Amino acid sequence: MKDFIFGTLATEELRQKFVRTHRAGVSHYQNRQPRDPLPGQAICLKLSVGPEYPSEHAWVYWTNDGTDPTGQLGKTSNGHVSQMEVAGVEWDTNLWGYIQHFKAEIPGQPAGSVLRYLLSAGNSHGQEVVADEGGIYACYIDDDPPPAWTQEAIVYQIFVDRFYPGKDKSWLSPQTPAGFYGGTLTGIVEKLDYLDELGVNVLWLTPIFPSPSHHAYNATDLFDIEPRLGTKAELGKLLEEAHQRGMRVLLDLVPNHVSNLHPTFQSAQTDRDSRYRSWYTFTHWPDKYRSFFDVPELPQLNLRDPSARQHMLEAAAFWLELGVDGYRVDYAIGPTPDFWADFRRVTREKRPDCWTFGEVVEPPDAQINFEGLLDGCLDFNLMEALRQAFAYDEWDADRLANFIGRHEAFFPEAFSRPSFLDNHDMNRILWAAGGDQRRLRLAAMCQFTLSGAPIIYYGTEIGLSQERDVRQDGLGLPEEARLPMIWGDEQDTNLLEYYRKLIHLRRELTGELRGKTKVIFADQGMISYTHGRDDKVLTILNLSQKESTYTLPDGRFRLILEATPDSIQLENLSVIEAPLGGAIFMKE
Amino acid sequence: MKDFIFGTLATEELRQKFVRTHRAGVSHYQNRQPRDPLPGQAICLKLSVGPEYPSEHAWVYWTNDGTDPTGQLGKTSNGHVSQMEVAGVEWDTNLWGYIQHFKAEIPGQPAGSVLRYLLSAGNSHGQEVVADEGGIYACYIDDDPPPAWTQEAIVYQIFVDRFYPGKDKSWLSPQTPAGFYGGTLTGIVEKLDYLDELGVNVLWLTPIFPSPSHHAYNATDLFDIEPRLGTKAELGKLLEEAHQRGMRVLLDLVPNHVSNLHPTFQSAQTDRDSRYRSWYTFTHWPDKYRSFFDVPELPQLNLRDPSARQHMLEAAAFWLELGVDGYRVDYAIGPTPDFWADFRRVTREKRPDCWTFGEVVEPPDAQINFEGLLDGCLDFNLMEALRQAFAYDEWDADRLANFIGRHEAFFPEAFSRPSFLDNHDMNRILWAAGGDQRRLRLAAMCQFTLSGAPIIYYGTEIGLSQERDVRQDGLGLPEEARLPMIWGDEQDTNLLEYYRKLIHLRRELTGELRGKTKVIFADQGMISYTHGRDDKVLTILNLSQKESTYTLPDGRFRLILEATPDSIQLENLSVIEAPLGGAIFMKE
Repeated sequence: MKDFIFGTLATEELRQKFVRTHRAGVSHYQNRQPRDPLPGQAICLKLSVGPEYPSEHAWVYWTNDGTDPTGQLGKTSNGHVSQMEVAGVEWDTNLWGYIQHFKAEIPGQPAGSVLRYLLSAGNSHGQEVVADEGGIYACYIDDDPPPAWTQEAIVYQIFVDRFYPGKDKSWLSPQTPAGFYGGTLTGIVEKLDYLDELGVNVLWLTPIFPSPSHHAYNATDLFDIEPRLGTKAELGKLLEEAHQRGMRVLLDLVPNHVSNLHPTFQSAQTDRDSRYRSWYTFTHWPDKYRSFFDVPELPQLNLRDPSARQHMLEAAAFWLELGVDGYRVDYAIGPTPDFWADFRRVTREKRPDCWTFGEVVEPPDAQINFEGLLDGCLDFNLMEALRQAFAYDEWDADRLANFIGRHEAFFPEAFSRPSFLDNHDMNRILWAAGGDQRRLRLAAMCQFTLSGAPIIYYGTEIGLSQERDVRQDGLGLPEEARLPMIWGDEQDTNLLEYYRKLIHLRRELTGELRGKTKVIFADQGMISYTHGRDDKVLTILNLSQKESTYTLPDGRFRLILEATPDSIQLENLSVIEAPLGGAIFMKE
Repeated sequence: MKDFIFGTLATEELRQKFVRTHRAGVSHYQNRQPRDPLPGQAICLKLSVGPEYPSEHAWVYWTNDGTDPTGQLGKTSNGHVSQMEVAGVEWDTNLWGYIQHFKAEIPGQPAGSVLRYLLSAGNSHGQEVVADEGGIYACYIDDDPPPAWTQEAIVYQIFVDRFYPGKDKSWLSPQTPAGFYGGTLTGIVEKLDYLDELGVNVLWLTPIFPSPSHHAYNATDLFDIEPRLGTKAELGKLLEEAHQRGMRVLLDLVPNHVSNLHPTFQSAQTDRDSRYRSWYTFTHWPDKYRSFFDVPELPQLNLRDPSARQHMLEAAAFWLELGVDGYRVDYAIGPTPDFWADFRRVTREKRPDCWTFGEVVEPPDAQINFEGLLDGCLDFNLMEALRQAFAYDEWDADRLANFIGRHEAFFPEAFSRPSFLDNHDMNRILWAAGGDQRRLRLAAMCQFTLSGAPIIYYGTEIGLSQERDVRQDGLGLPEEARLPMIWGDEQDTNLLEYYRKLIHLRRELTGELRGKTKVIFADQGMISYTHGRDDKVLTILNLSQKESTYTLPDGRFRLILEATPDSIQLENLSVIEAPLGGAIFMKE
């Protein structure tokens, strides 16, 4: 594996351990049908109990009035309890034991309510084990697919400190790549015409709240703007100008943790009686507390605390109120599902057409657990597949075709899967491809002809790369993938033109590209596919280093875009594609 | 793990590799509903396709006329083909990829027919992968549960060379434990009164066909008797005398392999044009060929060859014709399912009330694949559980209770699961228990109060043990568990008396002990349970080294057997059980 994206599941050993632990325990893992229940729709919950846990009985404790479900051995003092029924026994050779399955049905719930539940297994002499270490599961009951506008979204990710300082300013010269380069909100406003001409219609800004760091994923205040970047008025201006151009703006929200300089954490750590102490989880006050990946500068919020949760929900509502169109949420598996159900309720109440998607650097079966809690998740698995196939030459076309078909079948169509080739935490795609622009162009052509809303990481469209590998120094040097944007003559205008064409094509053809990909042909080198409706758009990509010939299907086809200038030659009904060539055709 | 029973799956690493390989491939693994179809009952087949295999289409090729199914990319020249339909996509974190599932339904088949099928997955440009390395699956269509008499079976396993030489003879004195001790069929006839008095009603004889070895699991002729052991007439006498006493006799059949001295193998190996060459699988004639665990003395029969298969089926029919009541079949996972379907057909045709069970040293999900092909399998997993709990003190009562409940739920009630504590391939239970007879008595009490037909390995009932561990010399010394039977004064008559009582109790209470075990109580030390019908028999076992107290459930209970003489004291409604004590009560 050339990337090391899925940190906690990056190796075979870690994966085996994860699966084993999960199957060995008392586990629900959000095994719920449907995952996103409609108002009034009955809900089936499943539970599995590993070989060493009691399984004479199993229970589900649940509430729909906002309180936390509680109970013991099938009795509850608040809410409801349902005895689960036996649903079969499965042998597990890895665990060398039997897994006992249970199921229970919860009656349909009214629209706008949040169902909270926890499950447990036990026996008649007082043993009881709560599923998944006591996590409270929840779902928000509503009929709320992602807003229609997200179907046509083409997203541009702006790392704010690195995009543009403004026309009267130059880049700063920080001593390290982790210093401040001086990008601003006003700088973005001044580049809206550039972005509009490029064709994107959604901006995702990395965090803009007050923070001591260049990336700002550690806020000291969730209700203000970092002064280096601008002011609330300047954000207002950006929103206004973007909206005038038909662009939406998403902010980046980090509900899992804040900066250790956040006043509430400062108070919690210095004042034994602070009202904020319960906002954090001190294992040994004041010096030991839960934090993001054990980094002491990033204390984790205890969102089970009602006032901490309220604070975070108010922040989410606050910026929507100001005109923001949605959120990319950082580290979404940090907070528990019941936080996300509340988040869903609050954000939908405030802005029924907002778009929320999560950063869930986990496999698809963890991503899909956000169905109904967020509109979707960043498509990390597609990103990995595209890099394997196009940047690293590790997958052939057949393997990619297999993946795409199954990946699209796995997720419900209403689940947003914004697609990307790179972001601020990994090597840029051009760097990953060893600087071979043909690979970038081909990857982008594939990205833009699949169904997920494409995201462009700032600078990819003009050839911005890096000087060193992000993993060169062992622990990682992600700042290398965050070099300042290139403006002016150093931009690669050919590549920019290609991106403009791709984007405008996508905007024109959004309707045609919707629905599942139909792979027409895939062998080692070549893949060709069309899409659900009408099969009008035909994409042919040659992943190999050899010229490949492909016979067009029946019908008249018009070439509408080549990945590289000399990607193809047409000979009667055959397409001869250059090594790493690609083309999009339109059926007439 | 103190035993090393499940050789190919003995370690965590081997288990992980097995599961991974199975899930990564194109795999059916006998995923069929029902596994044992009734005449006319539709049959649902499932197939899974790992991440790296094509899955555009999947097919099942099948026949019901005795021919082998064949086909290519959905076309067949004989028999039938069904296109399978997509049945969902599953993410597999261990494989880090998607598994594609398919299903298909085959129409119901007539009674007495054998359905043969194979499955494959492929795509539209000529790739096709046959499931499970091309194995042909099969099932015999009939409504044929195990015969009624097996419900009351109490089996005694006789290792023939080591049981009794006959009243005028002494044991031989071989130079090594692998030599001949001189047991005979006539010796068994002479001990039928001993066995009758003990109370057992089924004898399982280890192989008696001509063979160069003391264990005779490598035959040189499947239609005769090893002269050292006796003659056909003497076997006839044994059958007659046993049947007069109401006892049945099972032989031990080894369909997977024969001795390299078998005339057909000798011919195949020496004569390039031998008609028997196809009975074996030569990878490089004449010196390289498939054999049991790569032991050259044990060449594997190629039962896909029609005349080799016919030979084996005729042997099975031959001994049934002579009055034998069934078979314990050795290494049943060696031959493919379609051999077993034929075996089922032939044995049921010859003797509708014969009993056949397999030695399948594999986990339950492999054992259950013999449903409908054999009447059942030796219960290796229960054996392991009983040894863990009673001999090795590795499992507490709670864990044992968990296991028993799930194990019984996993298997259909009609599937024979003959239970045992030891056999000729592992340390005897008394040796495994460190010589502590209380552990043996408790294990036997548990064995005899569960639903599977109990097997007693010769000598266990009179305290026969061993002098060294079977694994002392690294590779194993199973002969140590095959020491000659003790006759006369050296028998432990107390233990023998206990076994007699257990056996007679079991025969009296067979009806009460049928059905699933109901665990009433289990904690670390103590387990108590009753059974399906009426709950009349209550068993209480104290696995711990401490005295334990147990309060009897409502009702009047009469003590009917103690595991050790001072197992219990009764105080009002409480039972105080000595360390490693056990008792059986009867509800009045």
